[in-house]
Amino acid sequence: MNRGSEENVRFSGDGASVEIIDQTLLPNETKYLSLKDSRDLFEAISALRVRGAPAIGIFAAYALCVLAGQIESNDYETFRTEVIKRGVFLNSARPTAVNPAKQIRRMEKLVDSLEGLPVPLILDAMREEAKQIRREDIDMCLSISEHGLTLIRDCYGILTHCNAGPLATSHYGTALGPILLAQERGIKLRVYSCETRPLLQGARLTSYELHRAGVDCTLICDNMASLVMKEGKIDAVFVGCDRAARNGDSANKIGTSGLAVLAKHYEIPFYVCCPSSTIDPDCATGADIEIELRAPDEIKELFFEKPVAPKDVKCYNPAFDVTDSGLITAIITEKGICKAPFERSLFE
Amino acid sequence: MNRGSEENVRFSGDGASVEIIDQTLLPNETKYLSLKDSRDLFEAISALRVRGAPAIGIFAAYALCVLAGQIESNDYETFRTEVIKRGVFLNSARPTAVNPAKQIRRMEKLVDSLEGLPVPLILDAMREEAKQIRREDIDMCLSISEHGLTLIRDCYGILTHCNAGPLATSHYGTALGPILLAQERGIKLRVYSCETRPLLQGARLTSYELHRAGVDCTLICDNMASLVMKEGKIDAVFVGCDRAARNGDSANKIGTSGLAVLAKHYEIPFYVCCPSSTIDPDCATGADIEIELRAPDEIKELFFEKPVAPKDVKCYNPAFDVTDSGLITAIITEKGICKAPFERSLFE
Repeated sequence: MNRGSEENVRFSGDGASVEIIDQTLLPNETKYLSLKDSRDLFEAISALRVRGAPAIGIFAAYALCVLAGQIESNDYETFRTEVIKRGVFLNSARPTAVNPAKQIRRMEKLVDSLEGLPVPLILDAMREEAKQIRREDIDMCLSISEHGLTLIRDCYGILTHCNAGPLATSHYGTALGPILLAQERGIKLRVYSCETRPLLQGARLTSYELHRAGVDCTLICDNMASLVMKEGKIDAVFVGCDRAARNGDSANKIGTSGLAVLAKHYEIPFYVCCPSSTIDPDCATGADIEIELRAPDEIKELFFEKPVAPKDVKCYNPAFDVTDSGLITAIITEKGICKAPFERSLFE
Repeated sequence: MNRGSEENVRFSGDGASVEIIDQTLLPNETKYLSLKDSRDLFEAISALRVRGAPAIGIFAAYALCVLAGQIESNDYETFRTEVIKRGVFLNSARPTAVNPAKQIRRMEKLVDSLEGLPVPLILDAMREEAKQIRREDIDMCLSISEHGLTLIRDCYGILTHCNAGPLATSHYGTALGPILLAQERGIKLRVYSCETRPLLQGARLTSYELHRAGVDCTLICDNMASLVMKEGKIDAVFVGCDRAARNGDSANKIGTSGLAVLAKHYEIPFYVCCPSSTIDPDCATGADIEIELRAPDEIKELFFEKPVAPKDVKCYNPAFDVTDSGLITAIITEKGICKAPFERSLFE
C-alpha cells in the first residue's frame, strides 16, 4: 500500500535543503519543494505547505539543520547563539502546535551537549538527530495505530476531521493510523471525512490519502457531521491534536470541539490521537494554549473562482479550537489509551 | 434602508413571465432573470436561483400563473387538469420545503372555487392570488420580526445559518427579520453568519444582506460555531425553517441540527423563525420529512477554481437536516412565540 508518506520531509542529498511535498497543491498536483532560504522555510510552515503537528515538528528540526549549516562561524558560542536565534524564528511561524518548539528545544539541547566539538561534527550530529526524530515519529505513529485499532470493530463507521494522516506525520499518521492499519489487516470500515473549512485539509488530503489506500471514504461538509451521527452512520470519532494541556484539554483544527460536543450528544466515543510529545506540561488547561488567528481571505477567496462574500465583510478565522477534556473518551498516545483523569493517565 | 428584497419575485408587465434575482450569482453580480419556459422555472428552483422556503412558495405560485397562461384551451376542465399537472411538476423541483406544495394547493383551490368563470378571468384571479400570497408573506415576516425582536437585547451576539433574510422571503426575512428590525430601531447587535457549505448562502447572501443593511456582521466557517459560542460571543441563535412537523421537529439547511446541539451544550437559546405555513400538519415528526440529497459536485467543484478532492471520492450531500424539537427554545411564527409542547403551541 502506498501511503504517500514515506518521504514527506527529507534532506536533499547534501543536507543543504529540506524537501517536502507542497500540500497546498494536493490533490491536484504532487510537487516537491526544495527549501533552504530561511524565509522560504518559515513560509512553508505558515502557508501550510507542510502541516500537521508532528510533521511541522519534524520539519522544524530539519529546517534548523539547514539554517545551522549556513552559519559562517566555526566558533561554538557564536554557532550556538545563531542556532537558538534561528530556532526562535522557525518556531514563530505557527503558535498553536507544540511540536516545533519541542523538537527545536531537543536540537538545542544536543548542541549544548556537544560543546567543545568542532562545528561541522555538531552539524552532522544535528542532522542525525533530525532523522532520529523522524524515525521515532514513525514508531510512535505505529504504536498509536496499534492502540487505536483495539478500539475499532469490523464495519465501524468512523468520522475524522482535518488531516492527521501520513502527510501530517511521517507514516500511518495519528488519527488515520488505526484506519490505515485496519485497512491493511482486512478490517472493513466506512470513513467519513469532514472537508475542514477553510483550508479543506479533509477534502484535499484526508480523502486523498484514504482513497488511494483503498479505504471506503465519504467526504462531507463540516456541517453534515450532526446528521451522519444522528443517522447512526458513526461509531467513533478519531481526530489528531496540535497541543494537549496537562488536564487533557486538546487543541486541534477548528471544528474539533464542535464534533466532540456532537459526539457526546449522540453518545459516540470521541478519541484524540497524538504522540506524547504533543502534551505540553507547561499548559495546565486549554486556556493556556494560544489559538492562531489567520487571514480573512482564507474564508472568502482562497481556492474560489470568485470571492464568495462581499469584499469588506469581516471574517473571524481561528485555525484551532480547544476540546474540553470532559468531552474526550480517550487520548491515544504511543504509550497506550489514556482515560480521565488525564492529569494522571497522560503522565504514567 | 435598502433590503434588496422588495422585488425579488415579480411578474413581468404582462404576467407572461416571472422575474427573479439569480441568487447563485450573488454577491458578485445582481442579475434579474425573466423566466417563462417550464424547464427554466423548474431549474430556477432546483438550481437555487431562487431559494428560501417562503420565496420558493411565492415563486411557485407566480410560476404556476405563468404556466397556466400558456394553456391553450379555454375549456375549464382541461384548464384545471393542466394546472394541476403543472403544479405537480413545479412541486417536484425540491422535496423538503413545504411552502411550494402549500401555495400550489392554494392556487388549485382558487381554480376550483372559480369553476364556471371564463379561463381568462380565472387567470387574472390567479395572478392576484399570487400577489396576495406575496403580500401576506410580507406581513408575516414583519410579525415574525416583531415577535423575534422581543427576544433580543441591545449588544446581543446572534448566530445565524444559511439565509433566512429578504432574499429567502419577500421582505425582512424570517430569521434575519428581528435583526434587520433591530438595526432599523437603533439596537446594536453583533451577528455571526455561518458560511453554510456547500452552497455558501451564509457567505454569499446573509453577509451580503446584513452588510448592506449596516449590521455589524462577521462571517465564519460552519465549524467555527462551537468556538464562538464557547468564547461567549453568542447570546442567541436564530435560524429559518423549511418544514416543521406537528411536534416542532424542524427541517432547515444542513448544519442547523448541529448548531442546536451546540447551543444546548453552551446553554444558548435556539430560535426557529418561520411563517405558520411552514408547519406541515401531515408530518407527525421530523422522521416524516423527506431530506433532499444533492450532487457531489456541489461539495468538490462548485465555486472552486480547481476540484478540492479526488475525482472519484464519494460525497454525501444532504441539503437539510432535522432539528429535534427538544433542542428548540421557541418557534417564532407570525402568530407569536411558541414553546414546548409544540403540538399545542403551534396550533393555538
